[in-house]
Amino acid sequence: MDRTIRLLISCPDKVGIVAAVSDFIAQRGGWMTEANYHADRDTGQFFMRSEILAQSLSVDSEQFRADFAVLADGFDMQWQFSDSDVRKKVVLMASHASHCLADILHRWHSGELECDIVGVVANHENLRSMVEWHKIPYHFINFKDREKAEANAEVEATLATMAPDVVVLARYMQIIPASLCQQYHGRMINIHHSFLPSFVGANPYQKAFDRGVKLVGATCHYVTEQLDEGPILDQDVIRVSHRDSKEDMVRLGKDVEQQVLARGLRAHLQDRIVVQGNKTVIFD
Amino acid sequence: MDRTIRLLISCPDKVGIVAAVSDFIAQRGGWMTEANYHADRDTGQFFMRSEILAQSLSVDSEQFRADFAVLADGFDMQWQFSDSDVRKKVVLMASHASHCLADILHRWHSGELECDIVGVVANHENLRSMVEWHKIPYHFINFKDREKAEANAEVEATLATMAPDVVVLARYMQIIPASLCQQYHGRMINIHHSFLPSFVGANPYQKAFDRGVKLVGATCHYVTEQLDEGPILDQDVIRVSHRDSKEDMVRLGKDVEQQVLARGLRAHLQDRIVVQGNKTVIFD
Amino acid sequence: MDRTIRLLISCPDKVGIVAAVSDFIAQRGGWMTEANYHADRDTGQFFMRSEILAQSLSVDSEQFRADFAVLADGFDMQWQFSDSDVRKKVVLMASHASHCLADILHRWHSGELECDIVGVVANHENLRSMVEWHKIPYHFINFKDREKAEANAEVEATLATMAPDVVVLARYMQIIPASLCQQYHGRMINIHHSFLPSFVGANPYQKAFDRGVKLVGATCHYVTEQLDEGPILDQDVIRVSHRDSKEDMVRLGKDVEQQVLARGLRAHLQDRIVVQGNKTVIFD
Amino acid sequence: MDRTIRLLISCPDKVGIVAAVSDFIAQRGGWMTEANYHADRDTGQFFMRSEILAQSLSVDSEQFRADFAVLADGFDMQWQFSDSDVRKKVVLMASHASHCLADILHRWHSGELECDIVGVVANHENLRSMVEWHKIPYHFINFKDREKAEANAEVEATLATMAPDVVVLARYMQIIPASLCQQYHGRMINIHHSFLPSFVGANPYQKAFDRGVKLVGATCHYVTEQLDEGPILDQDVIRVSHRDSKEDMVRLGKDVEQQVLARGLRAHLQDRIVVQGNKTVIFD
Repeated sequence: MDRTIRLLISCPDKVGIVAAVSDFIAQRGGWMTEANYHADRDTGQFFMRSEILAQSLSVDSEQFRADFAVLADGFDMQWQFSDSDVRKKVVLMASHASHCLADILHRWHSGELECDIVGVVANHENLRSMVEWHKIPYHFINFKDREKAEANAEVEATLATMAPDVVVLARYMQIIPASLCQQYHGRMINIHHSFLPSFVGANPYQKAFDRGVKLVGATCHYVTEQLDEGPILDQDVIRVSHRDSKEDMVRLGKDVEQQVLARGLRAHLQDRIVVQGNKTVIFD
Repeated sequence: MDRTIRLLISCPDKVGIVAAVSDFIAQRGGWMTEANYHADRDTGQFFMRSEILAQSLSVDSEQFRADFAVLADGFDMQWQFSDSDVRKKVVLMASHASHCLADILHRWHSGELECDIVGVVANHENLRSMVEWHKIPYHFINFKDREKAEANAEVEATLATMAPDVVVLARYMQIIPASLCQQYHGRMINIHHSFLPSFVGANPYQKAFDRGVKLVGATCHYVTEQLDEGPILDQDVIRVSHRDSKEDMVRLGKDVEQQVLARGLRAHLQDRIVVQGNKTVIFD
Repeated sequence: MDRTIRLLISCPDKVGIVAAVSDFIAQRGGWMTEANYHADRDTGQFFMRSEILAQSLSVDSEQFRADFAVLADGFDMQWQFSDSDVRKKVVLMASHASHCLADILHRWHSGELECDIVGVVANHENLRSMVEWHKIPYHFINFKDREKAEANAEVEATLATMAPDVVVLARYMQIIPASLCQQYHGRMINIHHSFLPSFVGANPYQKAFDRGVKLVGATCHYVTEQLDEGPILDQDVIRVSHRDSKEDMVRLGKDVEQQVLARGLRAHLQDRIVVQGNKTVIFD
Repeated sequence: MDRTIRLLISCPDKVGIVAAVSDFIAQRGGWMTEANYHADRDTGQFFMRSEILAQSLSVDSEQFRADFAVLADGFDMQWQFSDSDVRKKVVLMASHASHCLADILHRWHSGELECDIVGVVANHENLRSMVEWHKIPYHFINFKDREKAEANAEVEATLATMAPDVVVLARYMQIIPASLCQQYHGRMINIHHSFLPSFVGANPYQKAFDRGVKLVGATCHYVTEQLDEGPILDQDVIRVSHRDSKEDMVRLGKDVEQQVLARGLRAHLQDRIVVQGNKTVIFD
């Protein structure tokens, strides 16, 4: 993969934004490998993403950012600059179920995910061997026989030592305390095992079974303080029928969970997502 | 299509049901073209559907039914006997939107649906010409400038004159009064323009847009007194993105609504559905 | 719908294209409602589409085009300028099957397709009444009891009187002669009832049934002189099983054909497609 | 999981088969947990599968089989009796790519697949550590620097030592010699990385990219001597666009390959498949 610079921009829409930004890039020799734009009619907000071949630029990153800050001010932009060579540090959090964790680990192992997985935090011991085979540190946090607050404080401290850019809840079944939600706002990704907003909270497959739905789904979203209410990155579903027990739904849903989480995470790692209010713009 | 007899059975599960029923059919020369079974582990209920070539039977329908009633008693069966030659009478109900109505009319016109469409009831006049082109009576019920109850009474009376076996709400946007729900219990089919239980009630596409979901869907269900809570016949979804306005979602959703309604209706017309509690067993 | 100007561009990729074009548009006050870019790594070709609010432009269309021609020359661009107010004239061609024709007619009737359907050409009489109900002229061309060449000459002459911008083969089952393929190159759209390149030519559902596939599909493509080999606009599939007869596959496939054709046609009508070699770039 | 007996039957269709078989089972106290039937109109062949709770049977397996053989003779049945407690021995064959292998290993590890994986045969060394972590023997067969026939003889001998019931080609990129095809006829399962019959043979993603298809797929099939022509167990597809390079197609296709192979293998392990000619009846 060639090294690229990614520029994510959000600002009030007006005539001339694309012209100004693309002129800025062209003047510095920037060869764009991808360019995406979105104008939101309802809010009047404009979004763009440019991916630029790093070696084509006549200025270094620092200069580019300093220069761009001036332009950005003129358009009242919120913007994010990132470099594909600066790999994001990811921490995975898991509970007892292995499928999402195993899937992300394999994708990472086979080079499909551009990131460094710096650790796994889990409230069970059963996945240690799988994680350590990948040469990734495994941090067990005991949630039994003590106060949740105490365990959560240990989670927070453990995360802090790894300083992750992204935290992925790979079927981590504990409620995230508000302080962690705030600390990792916009960079903590959860997979919920239902097609949200259906079946918020615990036991969504049981609820789906009881309601007699004909599709079960999964939703990847950013974690906010409101349980299962954060901005959605991706969703998908799979067909079920009266022949499927709740256990069948759980099994069929696993594949959907894995894929939806992997797609959401991939988009985040490639800086393809802008959050606007409680919604996402995803440039793919 | 060959004439067939369809037997739908539901009873407490025990050893020997299939043997008894299939022996009963075989003794009367019955050639089965389809046979489906389902044992529900949770409730201990057993379901079966047999489709039998009519010409293969050595007894007439009346005799078959009389004989079968004896067997059915022994197993505490609820059962339904139907004859593919006795086409169900269907009334469609519509409002202003044409897509579901046009789709059903065309499927019927091209021979895809085994039924007689005996009338359309609508609270707008705009679809009259389309319906009458199909040589189907169009009953306009005025819901403006008078009490809902009065209009609903006219709906009920109009339906009564047609004595439908099935009523299809093809995006009929009025609430169905409880009396009608009861009268057509298990044979009034609605299409709701969301993936239930998400977005119950009015304006589901607006709600879906506001929530930022990545799929929009539709649900075909039997109408009960609880709005959008009846047993689900079918559901499906289509992918949307940040590029899609609410109007795009409405447009994309139309195709899903049409197909889901058509599949649900087809299954009902072919006597493939057993309702168990608030869920459906659909033999396809 | 607001009136918009659409600019479709293809040229060798180099630094500064987006800057030049967006600067050109911004200087004329152009408010972009959509902007899409694609750089093809394999061929080094660059593609872009801009949709501009017509009322925002400070120059008229003629001036815009004249000015743009100068810029385009400098970049060796192939380009297409279109105006959403200039509705494309569409002719539909059909045979005996009604489903794709009925679907397009209904979408057009309900305002979903931006075009004028100026006529239907068919080699059977059975669809006349449906077409004429939509107040669209129906041209029956007799293919029986005479030479194909003679019938095809009548087709060509009939098309010529209507001067269509787009010709849609809505399950028109005749081979298109080479002269017509050339005349309507890049604007004659066919729906083939298989997932190409599987099952080219006649009877694809029979072939699919015989091969025992678990999905059947449909392909919308531009017509070229090589049968079923033209650039693909869209494809989709639906699940089938051993329970489905060839007739079931035909029925299930109809829905896929309708949707795939409608999506392809819609993209074409909105000037979203650039053909590159035997492939399409579709900006959606 | 309760222990069950599975009976798979295929015979010429006639009146009374279901009655005879279900009576046979009921007389021995058999509680059926699943029952499936299929009558093929084209060939006049009848298929059925019964799954019976082992503990409900009043006779042991040997007696059941001996008794059933008599009944089967009378109907000219081909039949297969299997016991869920007799886990099938599976050998996986792989090449360099890890995704299908890793997916099957994880499903097996987490208890989703009822089988014993007794070994992996591969023509590269790179997957050894992953396999051995699962405590499964890894057999490397060198295909370089010697005759294919010699290497294939070693494959055959290695397989023979493990006496597998099922061989799974999990993206094993070598051609299987005719002798092995025959030896494992109906129990050697391959995953082909295209939607067959499109793109038979090598490099299907390159072919798909070159053709400009809008969906890429995968096909799970039994291996026969005709390359990629065997009976299809399952297929699926995923949407691609002009934005996707060949490498993107490879990546997107991996998920489809994994799922299609896993579904096909699962159906085979649960004795849900009857092969008829070059097609499969799959009772799910």
